[in-house]
Amino acid sequence: MSCEFGSRVRVTLFGQSHGEAVGAVLDGLPAGEAIDLDQAQAFLRRRAPGQAHATARVESDIPHVLSGLTDGHTCGAPLCAVIENHGANSRDYDALRDIPRPMHADYPARVKFHGQADLRGGGVYSARLTAALCFAGAVCLQILARRGVRLGAHLLRVGEEEDASFDPLMTDPAVFNLLAARSPAVLDEQAGARMLSAIDAARDAGDSLGGAVELCALGLPAGLGEPPFDGVENRLSQALYAIPAVKCVEFGAGAAVSRLRGSAHNDAFYYDEAGRVRTRTNRHGGVLGGMTTGMPLLLTCHIKPTPSIALPQESVNLQTHESARLCVPGRHDPCAALRAVPCVEAAAAIALLDLYQEGLIDGIG
Amino acid sequence: MSCEFGSRVRVTLFGQSHGEAVGAVLDGLPAGEAIDLDQAQAFLRRRAPGQAHATARVESDIPHVLSGLTDGHTCGAPLCAVIENHGANSRDYDALRDIPRPMHADYPARVKFHGQADLRGGGVYSARLTAALCFAGAVCLQILARRGVRLGAHLLRVGEEEDASFDPLMTDPAVFNLLAARSPAVLDEQAGARMLSAIDAARDAGDSLGGAVELCALGLPAGLGEPPFDGVENRLSQALYAIPAVKCVEFGAGAAVSRLRGSAHNDAFYYDEAGRVRTRTNRHGGVLGGMTTGMPLLLTCHIKPTPSIALPQESVNLQTHESARLCVPGRHDPCAALRAVPCVEAAAAIALLDLYQEGLIDGIG
Amino acid sequence: MSCEFGSRVRVTLFGQSHGEAVGAVLDGLPAGEAIDLDQAQAFLRRRAPGQAHATARVESDIPHVLSGLTDGHTCGAPLCAVIENHGANSRDYDALRDIPRPMHADYPARVKFHGQADLRGGGVYSARLTAALCFAGAVCLQILARRGVRLGAHLLRVGEEEDASFDPLMTDPAVFNLLAARSPAVLDEQAGARMLSAIDAARDAGDSLGGAVELCALGLPAGLGEPPFDGVENRLSQALYAIPAVKCVEFGAGAAVSRLRGSAHNDAFYYDEAGRVRTRTNRHGGVLGGMTTGMPLLLTCHIKPTPSIALPQESVNLQTHESARLCVPGRHDPCAALRAVPCVEAAAAIALLDLYQEGLIDGIG
Amino acid sequence: MSCEFGSRVRVTLFGQSHGEAVGAVLDGLPAGEAIDLDQAQAFLRRRAPGQAHATARVESDIPHVLSGLTDGHTCGAPLCAVIENHGANSRDYDALRDIPRPMHADYPARVKFHGQADLRGGGVYSARLTAALCFAGAVCLQILARRGVRLGAHLLRVGEEEDASFDPLMTDPAVFNLLAARSPAVLDEQAGARMLSAIDAARDAGDSLGGAVELCALGLPAGLGEPPFDGVENRLSQALYAIPAVKCVEFGAGAAVSRLRGSAHNDAFYYDEAGRVRTRTNRHGGVLGGMTTGMPLLLTCHIKPTPSIALPQESVNLQTHESARLCVPGRHDPCAALRAVPCVEAAAAIALLDLYQEGLIDGIG
Repeated sequence: MSCEFGSRVRVTLFGQSHGEAVGAVLDGLPAGEAIDLDQAQAFLRRRAPGQAHATARVESDIPHVLSGLTDGHTCGAPLCAVIENHGANSRDYDALRDIPRPMHADYPARVKFHGQADLRGGGVYSARLTAALCFAGAVCLQILARRGVRLGAHLLRVGEEEDASFDPLMTDPAVFNLLAARSPAVLDEQAGARMLSAIDAARDAGDSLGGAVELCALGLPAGLGEPPFDGVENRLSQALYAIPAVKCVEFGAGAAVSRLRGSAHNDAFYYDEAGRVRTRTNRHGGVLGGMTTGMPLLLTCHIKPTPSIALPQESVNLQTHESARLCVPGRHDPCAALRAVPCVEAAAAIALLDLYQEGLIDGIG
Repeated sequence: MSCEFGSRVRVTLFGQSHGEAVGAVLDGLPAGEAIDLDQAQAFLRRRAPGQAHATARVESDIPHVLSGLTDGHTCGAPLCAVIENHGANSRDYDALRDIPRPMHADYPARVKFHGQADLRGGGVYSARLTAALCFAGAVCLQILARRGVRLGAHLLRVGEEEDASFDPLMTDPAVFNLLAARSPAVLDEQAGARMLSAIDAARDAGDSLGGAVELCALGLPAGLGEPPFDGVENRLSQALYAIPAVKCVEFGAGAAVSRLRGSAHNDAFYYDEAGRVRTRTNRHGGVLGGMTTGMPLLLTCHIKPTPSIALPQESVNLQTHESARLCVPGRHDPCAALRAVPCVEAAAAIALLDLYQEGLIDGIG
Repeated sequence: MSCEFGSRVRVTLFGQSHGEAVGAVLDGLPAGEAIDLDQAQAFLRRRAPGQAHATARVESDIPHVLSGLTDGHTCGAPLCAVIENHGANSRDYDALRDIPRPMHADYPARVKFHGQADLRGGGVYSARLTAALCFAGAVCLQILARRGVRLGAHLLRVGEEEDASFDPLMTDPAVFNLLAARSPAVLDEQAGARMLSAIDAARDAGDSLGGAVELCALGLPAGLGEPPFDGVENRLSQALYAIPAVKCVEFGAGAAVSRLRGSAHNDAFYYDEAGRVRTRTNRHGGVLGGMTTGMPLLLTCHIKPTPSIALPQESVNLQTHESARLCVPGRHDPCAALRAVPCVEAAAAIALLDLYQEGLIDGIG
Repeated sequence: MSCEFGSRVRVTLFGQSHGEAVGAVLDGLPAGEAIDLDQAQAFLRRRAPGQAHATARVESDIPHVLSGLTDGHTCGAPLCAVIENHGANSRDYDALRDIPRPMHADYPARVKFHGQADLRGGGVYSARLTAALCFAGAVCLQILARRGVRLGAHLLRVGEEEDASFDPLMTDPAVFNLLAARSPAVLDEQAGARMLSAIDAARDAGDSLGGAVELCALGLPAGLGEPPFDGVENRLSQALYAIPAVKCVEFGAGAAVSRLRGSAHNDAFYYDEAGRVRTRTNRHGGVLGGMTTGMPLLLTCHIKPTPSIALPQESVNLQTHESARLCVPGRHDPCAALRAVPCVEAAAAIALLDLYQEGLIDGIG
């Protein structure tokens, strides 16, 4: 495992799905930053299960801070928060001890740890750890906001249902507040309703659905990022793939660039009225040469359909070395993308605060 | 800048487009490995410019090894190789000193380094550094091959022209030899011919084209990868985004997962005749939970159209703070994806050898 | 702050002296290792205050494991343990808010964090964090022991009182058990008695005493260490300086080497009866060229006298910018070296397990 | 091997004693810094062999810069310099192929790399690599000087001959210029003469001598350092142990602290006339709690006697598994400490520039 991320702002995650708690340690935060724990908890609620259209497992997700805050402010010491696990039902997993669930981490984890991994509820590979990730992200979001950096994400697609995209030239972060208050987080509420119907239909069929999440960050100064290996895309990808089920990250025009001509893809520079350099279009998604340009940062994550489905599936029994049929028991989100929205925000916030702090060395920001 | 990559096998790149040389230092390589420098140079030739359909700049790309090899074998010391730069024409860049080329690193690099960056020929952001990356990759490829890990890539798409995809259940690495000998590297030679025509047409129009590169790796043992932050996708993405112009990396079914139902996406496990666990389909692309499964590793990189085009473009003059029009002079690849094929192989080889060596700690491999 | 240590086995510490708890996250531990928490707690008791000759502050130091153990065995997930803080008396520190204690971290911490650091009880710079370090070390010690690596430390000096030194050619780890049971941990119990008298005398005089701790590790295979920058001495030093008050680390003959001739310093190689390469003397302390030689690893840490003394001292008031006189209140160890013995063992165990795991890549161990 | 050091300013060393060249890559340097290569070469000359009292091997040590400088200024790209090897005489080492030299890296390197290490001239473990270290240090020194940070070192001891110590309260860096011009670098020239006599006597006896080097750095702002694991002592130790033969590093009062009472060790704070916080004495050596205090940084490195001596020594033949007698041929420094002076400066400069750049994040400096 490698549960640590970051260069100047470092996050360490811990926990397992059916252990006592999950949590996060944040080291290298600037000191003297007020952290509003209610706001952090509100952020955590956005990924909380127990909602309609999500798993029935109830998780209270109350972060308990053990260190790093004094009178509500960061104090230089690492900030550690613990979120207790509740409602785990390990018996559901007895049947799975020897039969890896298709499309899950079960099989490679068994091989890697020679049968010693705790895979109940997905163990450390469970989306349960995104509660800790989201707490860390919530802290970083508050610190970024104080520096004029705001970000938000929405559910861009669920199966064949699609939301409107962010305006790539947007300047007003108000839409992020709007999205944070919506469930699902969509720009077009009618698209959101169709998404929920599609999810219900999939669940009723014992099936699940994939989805996509689009993120936008505003207010980033130009010049952040340490290419070639720690550029903005490298770092954000490293953070975003910590979210289980992400199989593709696109920056700016993303996969579509392979179909475009340069003349149709290039974004022209101009000076706006305030004398700032901007681009007339934003197909580059706010990143050139691995560095921010000051334009909105845009990325999209594609999230695979929840592998745990009620429909019978073919697998193997690693004990008996025979074929096995499997109907995954337990309570599972029919569409992981739904709850992934704040996770994408959290992972991005962690990576961006880290890049922001590094930028201070170059006098950026 | 952050020119270092890797945990156990570490690569440090150096150089600038119009400096004296580019090069790479590889540290942490296993000792006693024969390195065939002719083979490495042959690999470098695959990315070399000066071919038809590519920039006319001639680069000889002969790696000169300064350390790390004794009698042709790695000896524990860091392996440093230098590749001299030739044929740079810095005068082409005089006009660009104050006018950032659209869609290039010029603008954020100027901001980041407060006007001190050497941007002639793209400076350190130039694709020229991929010569050093390819040398490092060529070394790693030879070491991987000795461990039964083989990989190769092909040009999956140029604009609207598409090659066949790798068979996701393939087991025979012979196709990689075939691809290495072809230019362009395609599975379907007719598609390749259409791609070249499309590139010629774009060039003739003073324009450029995007493209996609698909990579497959065979022979990786199950259990490699250190999720959540150093899993296979995290690490490969970090390496692949070091290739200029990559804007999207997809693993397995990639972006398409967001449209799929679980029942259509899940890969079933079974035992093959040799008693190995395999999957009947391979939409997971050889990675589950951030760890290899032993199935072919599959990924696709999308590469933006070369930003430098002959057509006139709008930009700004950062000295006079006025608008500027720009026709980018110099010799540029009309389709960066063409020469990106070995770069994708190289970046993947570096990341995979690093993961392979780490796997030894867990007794994997 | 930088509370993370290690390459393959990574330890993250958190907590403050007067916060709710301290703790540690261990990532990258081998899976399937039985961890005896009673044994870990017994180890923690060796550094516990509340003993005679130490601070009167009572710390129960019961590690509470939140993740990473399943049925008492490591399971691949990061192991997080929390140790609650009790008995902190923050009022003692009200007087110190503006007056940095001489020889403490107070002053630079105030500067670094612009007055935002929580310095009650020394905050994150307090020796309180060594409780977390010792827990992490206790876990690593158990895993090392299973691989035949045993280590122990003793109080080599307190002021002018000196214990016998380890036999540099020793092969039997039984002495470590003996030392672990003694308080103070000394080879020569009469020296120990004199040390305690010296400590009592210093305390009675409102003063404190420095001391030295010698560590020996047996059973390390030859060839561990990654010089030049991650050799055995580099890594051990990095870990050992995490213990507050360490001002010098010596390896083998240590500082004395600067007075020696080569002929008097060099250790001769020979084959022992079992056909193993050994040295006839061990002035090199088990490390040559940054790598282990298979001989006992020997190092000594010098620990400054506790800065907090009852005697009046000169300082400054950072608020009023005036001189100030200070008698440090609170309950302080008159000799930090006494409790540093298990801390030195813990820090060394963490660094050595990390090096041991890395050695597996080279086929060492 | 682990040839990389640093967090924000990263140095990668490469080369072997009898390879073609040694060199260094510096990444993360601030851009726009003038680097005077003549001055760097003058610095390199201070460690150059071929002087009286040192090995007769002639090394020209002319750094050739391949990248990272444009018009003599850092340009954001990694700075790579190569220093060719000359005058290596590999035949001297034929006799040593199977017989490890006592007190050298030969034996553990053979074990680590399973006989594949190139150990001619000490290979990558040779002091030859300190030429590359010194070049990197020379660059960092120039950048530090521009920020008001100056440092220098002198030969504190050779065997029983001792130089005067730095004034721990010194404020004037002029003495560093003086030391740089002296050979040996001593404060008391009579002590220097006695040292040279002692070295000559040791050489004439076929023997060698250990020595100590004291370093002082002035002008460091208070608050640098990232304790507990990346504090000033942790980082400096990690860098300094990259110099072959260092066996002990002391900070401030160093090993002597274990003999002191708190009242005799504590440094009192006061405001000087300029209103700056200073200490009346400087036994803490400019570091408290792992952070700089603004007082002179003081450390001493103890360097073992050159292991290669002409006197016959006992060793083993690893091929025949028999005892062997050895008179080490070749040209060796009779006192490594003599040439270690600039190496200590270089290693410290690299670590301090890295800490300095990190401090910018906290607004220090």
